[in-house]
Amino acid sequence: MTGETFELINGYMLSQMEDAAHDREHIYRVLYNAMDIASYEKGVDFDVLIAACLLHDVGRREQFADPGVCHARVGAEKAYDFLKSHGFSEEFAAHVRDCVRTHRFRRAQPPESTEAKILFDADKLDAVGTMGIARTLNYKGRVGDPLYNMGPDGIPSDGVGDTVNSFFHEYKFKMERLYEGFYTKRGRELAATRKKAAEEFYFALLAECREPYLNGRPLLDKLLDGGETHG
Amino acid sequence: MTGETFELINGYMLSQMEDAAHDREHIYRVLYNAMDIASYEKGVDFDVLIAACLLHDVGRREQFADPGVCHARVGAEKAYDFLKSHGFSEEFAAHVRDCVRTHRFRRAQPPESTEAKILFDADKLDAVGTMGIARTLNYKGRVGDPLYNMGPDGIPSDGVGDTVNSFFHEYKFKMERLYEGFYTKRGRELAATRKKAAEEFYFALLAECREPYLNGRPLLDKLLDGGETHG
Repeated sequence: MTGETFELINGYMLSQMEDAAHDREHIYRVLYNAMDIASYEKGVDFDVLIAACLLHDVGRREQFADPGVCHARVGAEKAYDFLKSHGFSEEFAAHVRDCVRTHRFRRAQPPESTEAKILFDADKLDAVGTMGIARTLNYKGRVGDPLYNMGPDGIPSDGVGDTVNSFFHEYKFKMERLYEGFYTKRGRELAATRKKAAEEFYFALLAECREPYLNGRPLLDKLLDGGETHG
Repeated sequence: MTGETFELINGYMLSQMEDAAHDREHIYRVLYNAMDIASYEKGVDFDVLIAACLLHDVGRREQFADPGVCHARVGAEKAYDFLKSHGFSEEFAAHVRDCVRTHRFRRAQPPESTEAKILFDADKLDAVGTMGIARTLNYKGRVGDPLYNMGPDGIPSDGVGDTVNSFFHEYKFKMERLYEGFYTKRGRELAATRKKAAEEFYFALLAECREPYLNGRPLLDKLLDGGETHG
Protein backbone atom coordinates (compact mmCIF):
# COMPACT_ATOMS: atom_id res chain seq x y z
CA MET A 1 0.00 0.00 0.00
CA THR A 2 1.27 3.46 -0.88
CA GLY A 3 1.46 6.25 1.68
CA GLU A 4 -1.16 8.16 -0.33
CA THR A 5 -3.64 5.27 -0.21
CA PHE A 6 -3.02 4.90 3.52
CA GLU A 7 -3.73 8.60 4.09
CA LEU A 8 -6.91 8.45 2.00
CA ILE A 9 -8.35 5.63 4.14
CA ASN A 10 -6.92 7.08 7.37
CA GLY A 11 -8.55 10.45 6.64
CA TYR A 12 -11.95 8.84 6.18
CA MET A 13 -11.50 6.90 9.45
CA LEU A 14 -10.61 10.11 11.32
CA SER A 15 -13.67 11.89 9.90
CA GLN A 16 -15.87 9.17 11.47
CA MET A 17 -14.19 9.36 14.93
CA GLU A 18 -14.56 12.98 15.84
CA ASP A 19 -15.33 12.77 19.52
CA ALA A 20 -12.82 10.82 21.56
CA ALA A 21 -9.03 10.73 21.40
CA HIS A 22 -9.01 7.22 22.87
CA ASP A 23 -11.09 5.87 20.00
CA ARG A 24 -8.39 6.93 17.53
CA GLU A 25 -5.59 5.49 19.67
CA HIS A 26 -7.46 2.19 19.67
CA ILE A 27 -7.54 2.08 15.86
CA TYR A 28 -3.77 2.49 15.60
CA ARG A 29 -3.06 -0.07 18.33
CA VAL A 30 -5.28 -2.57 16.48
CA LEU A 31 -3.46 -1.80 13.22
CA TYR A 32 -0.05 -2.30 14.86
CA ASN A 33 -1.21 -5.41 16.74
CA ALA A 34 -2.35 -6.78 13.38
CA MET A 35 1.08 -6.17 11.84
CA ASP A 36 2.68 -7.99 14.78
CA ILE A 37 0.32 -10.97 14.47
CA ALA A 38 0.55 -11.00 10.65
CA SER A 39 4.33 -11.34 10.78
CA TYR A 40 3.77 -14.82 12.28
CA GLU A 41 1.24 -15.86 9.59
CA LYS A 42 1.69 -16.96 5.97
CA GLY A 43 0.11 -15.53 2.79
CA VAL A 44 -1.35 -12.39 4.36
CA ASP A 45 -2.84 -9.74 2.04
CA PHE A 46 -1.47 -6.71 3.86
CA ASP A 47 -3.39 -4.17 1.77
CA VAL A 48 -6.71 -5.72 2.79
CA LEU A 49 -5.56 -6.09 6.39
CA ILE A 50 -4.41 -2.46 6.71
CA ALA A 51 -7.64 -1.12 5.21
CA ALA A 52 -9.77 -3.41 7.39
CA CYS A 53 -7.94 -2.34 10.58
CA LEU A 54 -8.31 1.36 9.79
CA LEU A 55 -12.00 0.97 8.97
CA HIS A 56 -13.12 -1.65 11.51
CA ASP A 57 -14.87 0.82 13.87
CA VAL A 58 -16.29 3.39 11.44
CA GLY A 59 -19.76 2.25 12.51
CA ARG A 60 -19.19 3.09 16.20
CA ARG A 61 -20.90 6.48 15.97
CA GLU A 62 -24.07 4.91 14.61
CA GLN A 63 -24.10 2.31 17.41
CA PHE A 64 -23.49 4.93 20.11
CA ALA A 65 -26.44 6.96 18.78
CA ASP A 66 -28.64 3.85 18.62
CA PRO A 67 -27.55 0.82 20.71
CA GLY A 68 -29.78 -1.38 18.56
CA VAL A 69 -27.40 -0.86 15.63
CA CYS A 70 -24.43 -3.28 15.32
CA HIS A 71 -21.31 -1.24 14.59
CA ALA A 72 -19.66 -4.16 12.79
CA ARG A 73 -22.58 -4.56 10.40
CA VAL A 74 -23.07 -0.86 9.61
CA GLY A 75 -19.30 -0.27 9.58
CA ALA A 76 -18.80 -3.06 7.02
CA GLU A 77 -21.23 -1.39 4.62
CA LYS A 78 -19.71 2.07 5.19
CA ALA A 79 -16.22 0.68 4.51
CA TYR A 80 -17.40 -1.07 1.33
CA ASP A 81 -19.17 2.05 0.03
CA PHE A 82 -16.17 4.25 0.79
CA LEU A 83 -13.71 1.93 -0.97
CA LYS A 84 -15.94 1.37 -4.02
CA SER A 85 -16.54 5.09 -4.45
CA HIS A 86 -12.78 5.72 -4.34
CA GLY A 87 -11.79 3.33 -7.11
CA PHE A 88 -10.90 0.17 -5.20
CA SER A 89 -11.86 -3.12 -6.85
CA GLU A 90 -15.02 -5.03 -6.02
CA GLU A 91 -12.91 -7.94 -4.75
CA PHE A 92 -10.84 -5.70 -2.45
CA ALA A 93 -13.84 -3.78 -1.06
CA ALA A 94 -15.82 -7.00 -0.49
CA HIS A 95 -12.90 -8.64 1.35
CA VAL A 96 -12.50 -5.60 3.65
CA ARG A 97 -16.28 -5.61 4.23
CA ASP A 98 -16.14 -9.26 5.34
CA CYS A 99 -13.28 -8.52 7.75
CA VAL A 100 -15.11 -5.59 9.33
CA ARG A 101 -18.43 -7.46 9.58
CA THR A 102 -16.89 -10.41 11.47
CA HIS A 103 -14.52 -8.52 13.81
CA ARG A 104 -17.10 -8.36 16.60
CA PHE A 105 -17.53 -11.36 18.86
CA ARG A 106 -20.60 -13.17 17.52
CA ARG A 107 -20.81 -16.96 17.49
CA ALA A 108 -23.05 -16.95 14.41
CA GLN A 109 -20.59 -14.94 12.34
CA PRO A 110 -16.97 -16.00 12.86
CA PRO A 111 -14.08 -14.52 10.85
CA GLU A 112 -13.12 -16.76 7.91
CA SER A 113 -10.19 -15.35 5.94
CA THR A 114 -6.69 -15.03 7.40
CA GLU A 115 -7.04 -11.24 7.33
CA ALA A 116 -10.42 -11.39 9.12
CA LYS A 117 -8.95 -13.64 11.83
CA ILE A 118 -5.97 -11.33 12.32
CA LEU A 119 -8.22 -8.25 12.63
CA PHE A 120 -10.44 -10.10 15.10
CA ASP A 121 -7.46 -11.05 17.28
CA ALA A 122 -5.78 -7.64 17.01
CA ASP A 123 -9.02 -6.00 18.18
CA LYS A 124 -9.60 -8.49 21.03
CA LEU A 125 -6.00 -8.04 22.19
CA ASP A 126 -6.90 -4.40 22.88
CA ALA A 127 -9.85 -5.59 25.03
CA VAL A 128 -7.92 -7.91 27.38
CA GLY A 129 -5.35 -7.15 30.09
CA THR A 130 -5.03 -3.76 31.75
CA MET A 131 -5.83 -2.15 28.39
CA GLY A 132 -9.22 -3.84 28.44
CA ILE A 133 -9.69 -2.62 32.02
CA ALA A 134 -8.73 0.97 31.11
CA ARG A 135 -10.92 1.09 28.01
CA THR A 136 -13.90 -0.40 29.85
CA LEU A 137 -13.56 2.11 32.71
CA ASN A 138 -13.33 4.93 30.15
CA TYR A 139 -16.51 3.68 28.51
CA LYS A 140 -18.36 3.19 31.80
CA GLY A 141 -17.52 6.79 32.71
CA ARG A 142 -18.80 7.97 29.36
CA VAL A 143 -22.17 6.24 29.73
CA GLY A 144 -22.45 6.79 33.51
CA ASP A 145 -22.48 3.14 34.66
CA PRO A 146 -21.36 2.36 38.24
CA LEU A 147 -18.26 0.40 39.25
CA TYR A 148 -20.39 -2.04 41.20
CA ASN A 149 -23.92 -2.97 42.17
CA MET A 150 -24.79 -3.75 45.78
CA GLY A 151 -25.03 -7.48 46.49
CA PRO A 152 -27.77 -9.14 48.57
CA ASP A 153 -25.29 -9.23 51.50
CA GLY A 154 -25.15 -5.42 51.54
CA ILE A 155 -21.62 -5.10 50.20
CA PRO A 156 -20.47 -4.37 46.62
CA SER A 157 -21.08 -7.36 44.34
CA ASP A 158 -18.15 -9.03 42.55
CA GLY A 159 -20.25 -8.97 39.37
CA VAL A 160 -21.00 -12.70 39.22
CA GLY A 161 -24.72 -12.57 39.98
CA ASP A 162 -25.35 -9.10 38.56
CA THR A 163 -28.28 -8.51 36.24
CA VAL A 164 -27.64 -4.81 35.55
CA ASN A 165 -24.61 -3.01 34.13
CA SER A 166 -21.51 -2.22 36.14
CA PHE A 167 -17.76 -2.46 35.63
CA PHE A 168 -17.57 -5.71 37.61
CA HIS A 169 -20.48 -7.16 35.64
CA GLU A 170 -18.64 -6.39 32.40
CA TYR A 171 -15.46 -7.93 33.78
CA LYS A 172 -17.12 -11.21 34.79
CA PHE A 173 -19.49 -11.59 31.85
CA LYS A 174 -17.29 -10.36 28.99
CA MET A 175 -13.67 -9.46 29.65
CA GLU A 176 -12.79 -12.62 31.56
CA ARG A 177 -14.11 -14.78 28.70
CA LEU A 178 -12.19 -13.11 25.86
CA TYR A 179 -8.91 -14.97 26.42
CA GLU A 180 -10.31 -18.23 25.01
CA GLY A 181 -11.60 -16.75 21.77
CA PHE A 182 -8.45 -16.05 19.76
CA TYR A 183 -7.89 -17.47 16.26
CA THR A 184 -4.12 -17.00 15.86
CA LYS A 185 -1.27 -18.45 17.92
CA ARG A 186 0.48 -15.09 18.32
CA GLY A 187 -2.73 -13.34 19.41
CA ARG A 188 -3.52 -16.03 21.97
CA GLU A 189 0.01 -15.90 23.35
CA LEU A 190 0.03 -12.10 23.71
CA ALA A 191 -3.38 -12.18 25.41
CA ALA A 192 -2.18 -14.80 27.88
CA THR A 193 0.74 -12.59 28.96
CA ARG A 194 -1.74 -9.83 29.84
CA LYS A 195 -4.19 -11.85 31.90
CA LYS A 196 -2.47 -11.79 35.30
CA ALA A 197 -2.23 -8.00 35.64
CA ALA A 198 -5.94 -7.65 34.79
CA GLU A 199 -6.93 -10.27 37.36
CA GLU A 200 -4.81 -8.61 40.03
CA PHE A 201 -6.45 -5.27 39.31
CA TYR A 202 -9.93 -6.80 39.53
CA PHE A 203 -9.27 -8.36 42.94
CA ALA A 204 -7.50 -5.27 44.31
CA LEU A 205 -10.30 -2.96 43.18
CA LEU A 206 -12.99 -5.27 44.53
CA ALA A 207 -11.25 -5.32 47.94
CA GLU A 208 -10.96 -1.51 47.93
CA CYS A 209 -14.63 -1.16 47.01
CA ARG A 210 -15.65 -3.41 49.88
CA GLU A 211 -13.34 -2.10 52.63
CA PRO A 212 -15.37 1.02 53.46
CA TYR A 213 -18.58 -1.03 53.72
CA LEU A 214 -16.90 -3.65 55.91
CA ASN A 215 -14.69 -1.41 58.08
CA GLY A 216 -16.62 1.85 58.39
CA ARG A 217 -20.33 1.34 57.85
CA PRO A 218 -20.99 -0.72 61.00
CA LEU A 219 -20.02 2.29 63.14
CA LEU A 220 -22.35 4.57 61.16
CA ASP A 221 -25.22 2.11 61.56
CA LYS A 222 -24.59 2.07 65.31
CA LEU A 223 -24.50 5.89 65.51
CA LEU A 224 -27.74 6.29 63.55
CA ASP A 225 -29.33 3.65 65.74
CA GLY A 226 -28.85 5.93 68.75
CA GLY A 227 -25.45 4.83 70.01
CA GLU A 228 -22.66 6.98 71.34
CA THR A 229 -21.85 9.87 68.98
CA HIS A 230 -18.61 11.09 70.51
CA GLY A 231 -15.48 8.96 70.31
CA MET B 1 -27.43 11.91 64.61
CA THR B 2 -30.94 10.57 64.14
CA GLY B 3 -31.94 8.57 61.10
CA GLU B 4 -34.32 11.39 60.12
CA THR B 5 -31.55 13.98 60.17
CA PHE B 6 -29.32 11.67 58.13
CA GLU B 7 -32.06 11.21 55.51
CA LEU B 8 -32.68 14.97 55.33
CA ILE B 9 -29.01 15.70 54.52
CA ASN B 10 -28.69 12.57 52.35
CA GLY B 11 -31.72 13.61 50.29
CA TYR B 12 -30.22 17.03 49.61
CA MET B 13 -26.92 15.41 48.59
CA LEU B 14 -28.70 13.05 46.17
CA SER B 15 -30.61 15.97 44.64
CA GLN B 16 -27.26 17.59 43.76
CA MET B 17 -25.75 14.41 42.19
CA GLU B 18 -28.24 13.52 39.54
CA ASP B 19 -26.03 12.38 36.71
CA ALA B 20 -23.61 9.60 37.64
CA ALA B 21 -24.04 6.53 39.82
CA HIS B 22 -20.30 6.48 40.60
CA ASP B 23 -20.47 9.96 42.13
CA ARG B 24 -23.00 8.75 44.70
CA GLU B 25 -20.98 5.60 45.46
CA HIS B 26 -17.99 7.85 46.14
CA ILE B 27 -19.91 9.85 48.75
CA TYR B 28 -20.81 6.74 50.72
CA ARG B 29 -17.30 5.29 50.53
CA VAL B 30 -15.93 8.58 51.87
CA LEU B 31 -18.51 8.55 54.67
CA TYR B 32 -17.61 4.96 55.62
CA ASN B 33 -13.87 5.63 55.29
CA ALA B 34 -14.35 8.57 57.65
CA MET B 35 -16.08 6.33 60.22
CA ASP B 36 -13.18 3.88 59.98
CA ILE B 37 -10.57 6.64 60.45
CA ALA B 38 -12.58 8.36 63.19
CA SER B 39 -12.67 5.20 65.28
CA TYR B 40 -8.89 5.63 65.70
CA GLU B 41 -9.16 9.33 66.71
CA LYS B 42 -10.22 10.99 69.98
CA GLY B 43 -12.93 13.63 70.59
CA VAL B 44 -14.56 13.40 67.17
CA ASP B 45 -17.85 15.27 66.62
CA PHE B 46 -19.59 12.59 64.58
CA ASP B 47 -22.62 14.72 63.70
CA VAL B 48 -20.39 17.32 62.04
CA LEU B 49 -18.31 14.62 60.37
CA ILE B 50 -21.30 12.75 58.93
CA ALA B 51 -22.87 15.95 57.59
CA ALA B 52 -19.55 17.10 56.10
CA CYS B 53 -18.95 13.75 54.37
CA LEU B 54 -22.44 13.70 52.85
CA LEU B 55 -22.13 17.29 51.64
CA HIS B 56 -18.46 17.50 50.62
CA ASP B 57 -19.07 17.26 46.85
CA VAL B 58 -22.36 19.14 46.46
CA GLY B 59 -20.44 21.77 44.45
CA ARG B 60 -19.26 19.25 41.81
CA ARG B 61 -22.03 20.11 39.37
CA GLU B 62 -21.08 23.79 39.41
CA GLN B 63 -17.40 22.94 38.79
CA PHE B 64 -18.24 20.53 35.96
CA ALA B 65 -20.31 23.26 34.26
CA ASP B 66 -17.53 25.84 34.76
CA PRO B 67 -14.01 24.47 35.45
CA GLY B 68 -13.05 27.89 36.84
CA VAL B 69 -15.31 27.24 39.84
CA CYS B 70 -13.78 25.41 42.85
CA HIS B 71 -16.26 22.73 43.97
CA ALA B 72 -14.94 22.86 47.55
CA ARG B 73 -15.53 26.58 47.83
CA VAL B 74 -19.00 26.63 46.25
CA GLY B 75 -19.94 23.36 47.98
CA ALA B 76 -19.02 24.82 51.39
CA GLU B 77 -21.43 27.71 50.90
CA LYS B 78 -24.19 25.45 49.58
CA ALA B 79 -23.78 23.14 52.58
CA TYR B 80 -23.87 26.09 55.01
CA ASP B 81 -26.97 27.58 53.40
CA PHE B 82 -28.76 24.22 53.36
CA LEU B 83 -28.01 23.53 57.04
CA LYS B 84 -28.90 27.06 58.21
CA SER B 85 -32.20 27.01 56.31
CA HIS B 86 -33.10 23.65 57.92
CA GLY B 87 -32.68 24.73 61.52
CA PHE B 88 -29.11 23.65 62.31
CA SER B 89 -27.11 25.97 64.58
CA GLU B 90 -24.71 28.60 63.28
CA GLU B 91 -21.81 26.79 64.99
CA PHE B 92 -22.72 23.43 63.40
CA ALA B 93 -23.26 24.87 59.91
CA ALA B 94 -20.02 26.88 60.06
CA HIS B 95 -18.00 23.85 61.19
CA VAL B 96 -19.37 21.74 58.31
CA ARG B 97 -18.63 24.62 55.93
CA ASP B 98 -15.00 24.69 57.05
CA CYS B 99 -14.65 20.93 56.57
CA VAL B 100 -16.08 21.06 53.04
CA ARG B 101 -14.00 24.10 52.06
CA THR B 102 -10.70 22.47 53.04
CA HIS B 103 -11.30 18.93 51.77
CA ARG B 104 -9.67 19.65 48.42
CA PHE B 105 -5.89 19.48 48.15
CA ARG B 106 -4.75 23.12 48.32
CA ARG B 107 -1.55 24.11 50.14
CA ALA B 108 -2.95 27.53 51.05
CA GLN B 109 -6.02 26.08 52.77
CA PRO B 110 -5.26 22.99 54.87
CA PRO B 111 -7.89 21.29 57.04
CA GLU B 112 -7.67 22.42 60.68
CA SER B 113 -10.23 20.65 62.88
CA THR B 114 -10.12 16.91 63.58
CA GLU B 115 -13.31 16.47 61.53
CA ALA B 116 -11.85 18.43 58.60
CA LYS B 117 -8.68 16.29 58.65
CA ILE B 118 -10.71 13.07 58.74
CA LEU B 119 -12.88 14.17 55.79
CA PHE B 120 -9.75 15.17 53.85
CA ASP B 121 -8.13 11.76 54.43
CA ALA B 122 -11.34 9.79 53.79
CA ASP B 123 -11.72 11.59 50.45
CA LYS B 124 -8.05 11.15 49.47
CA LEU B 125 -8.22 7.46 50.35
CA ASP B 126 -10.81 7.11 47.57
CA ALA B 127 -8.33 8.75 45.14
CA VAL B 128 -5.34 6.42 45.72
CA GLY B 129 -4.84 2.75 44.86
CA THR B 130 -6.83 0.95 42.20
CA MET B 131 -9.89 2.97 43.27
CA GLY B 132 -8.06 6.15 42.26
CA ILE B 133 -7.14 4.49 38.96
CA ALA B 134 -10.73 3.40 38.30
CA ARG B 135 -12.24 6.78 39.17
CA THR B 136 -9.67 8.67 37.09
CA LEU B 137 -10.29 6.42 34.07
CA ASN B 138 -14.05 6.94 34.51
CA TYR B 139 -13.52 10.69 34.56
CA LYS B 140 -11.15 10.68 31.58
CA GLY B 141 -13.77 8.78 29.61
CA ARG B 142 -16.41 11.29 30.61
CA VAL B 143 -14.36 14.30 29.44
CA GLY B 144 -12.79 12.52 26.44
CA ASP B 145 -9.11 12.71 27.48
CA PRO B 146 -6.70 10.13 26.01
CA LEU B 147 -4.86 7.42 27.95
CA TYR B 148 -1.51 8.74 26.71
CA ASN B 149 0.16 11.40 24.64
CA MET B 150 2.82 10.46 22.11
CA GLY B 151 6.35 11.08 23.38
CA PRO B 152 9.17 12.68 21.34
CA ASP B 153 10.52 9.16 20.71
CA GLY B 154 7.33 8.23 18.83
CA ILE B 155 5.95 5.87 21.48
CA PRO B 156 3.32 6.55 24.16
CA SER B 157 4.68 8.83 26.89
CA ASP B 158 4.82 7.63 30.49
CA GLY B 159 3.30 10.98 31.51
CA VAL B 160 6.44 12.44 33.09
CA GLY B 161 7.15 15.16 30.53
CA ASP B 162 3.54 15.68 29.44
CA THR B 163 2.15 19.20 29.14
CA VAL B 164 -1.39 18.23 28.10
CA ASN B 165 -3.99 16.04 29.79
CA SER B 166 -3.94 12.26 29.68
CA PHE B 167 -4.43 9.41 32.13
CA PHE B 168 -0.67 8.92 32.50
CA HIS B 169 -0.17 12.66 33.04
CA GLU B 170 -2.74 12.59 35.86
CA TYR B 171 -1.07 9.55 37.37
CA LYS B 172 2.41 11.11 37.43
CA PHE B 173 1.41 14.65 38.38
CA LYS B 174 -1.37 14.00 40.86
CA MET B 175 -2.18 10.43 41.90
CA GLU B 176 1.38 9.39 42.64
CA ARG B 177 1.81 12.35 44.99
CA LEU B 178 -1.31 11.85 47.10
CA TYR B 179 0.18 9.19 49.40
CA GLU B 180 2.34 11.75 51.25
CA GLY B 181 -0.48 14.16 52.05
CA PHE B 182 -2.51 12.37 54.72
CA TYR B 183 -3.23 13.95 58.12
CA THR B 184 -4.27 10.89 60.15
CA LYS B 185 -2.28 7.78 61.01
CA ARG B 186 -5.09 5.41 59.98
CA GLY B 187 -5.60 7.21 56.65
CA ARG B 188 -1.90 7.14 55.83
CA GLU B 189 -1.67 3.43 56.70
CA LEU B 190 -4.68 2.47 54.56
CA ALA B 191 -3.33 4.49 51.63
CA ALA B 192 0.06 2.79 51.91
CA THR B 193 -1.55 -0.66 51.59
CA ARG B 194 -3.14 0.40 48.30
CA LYS B 195 -0.06 1.83 46.60
CA LYS B 196 1.51 -1.32 45.16
CA ALA B 197 -1.53 -2.49 43.15
CA ALA B 198 -1.86 0.99 41.61
CA GLU B 199 1.83 1.07 40.63
CA GLU B 200 1.62 -2.39 39.10
CA PHE B 201 -1.39 -1.34 37.05
CA TYR B 202 0.41 1.78 35.82
CA PHE B 203 3.46 -0.17 34.63
CA ALA B 204 1.39 -2.98 33.08
CA LEU B 205 -0.84 -0.53 31.20
CA LEU B 206 2.13 1.52 30.01
CA ALA B 207 3.78 -1.64 28.64
CA GLU B 208 0.54 -2.68 26.89
CA CYS B 209 0.18 0.80 25.39
CA ARG B 210 3.72 0.66 24.01
CA GLU B 211 3.82 -2.92 22.72
CA PRO B 212 1.86 -2.29 19.50
CA TYR B 213 4.08 0.70 18.65
CA LEU B 214 7.26 -1.27 19.37
CA ASN B 215 6.29 -4.68 17.93
CA GLY B 216 3.93 -3.87 15.07
CA ARG B 217 4.48 -0.38 13.72
CA PRO B 218 7.97 -0.99 12.23
CA LEU B 219 6.47 -3.50 9.78
CA LEU B 220 3.75 -1.02 8.75
CA ASP B 221 6.37 1.69 8.19
CA LYS B 222 8.32 -0.71 5.99
CA LEU B 223 5.23 -1.67 3.98
CA LEU B 224 4.21 1.95 3.39
CA ASP B 225 7.76 2.73 2.37
CA GLY B 226 7.40 0.34 -0.57
CA GLY B 227 8.63 -2.91 0.93
CA GLU B 228 7.24 -6.40 0.46
CA THR B 229 3.48 -6.48 1.05
CA HIS B 230 2.92 -10.22 1.14
CA GLY B 231 4.21 -12.26 4.08
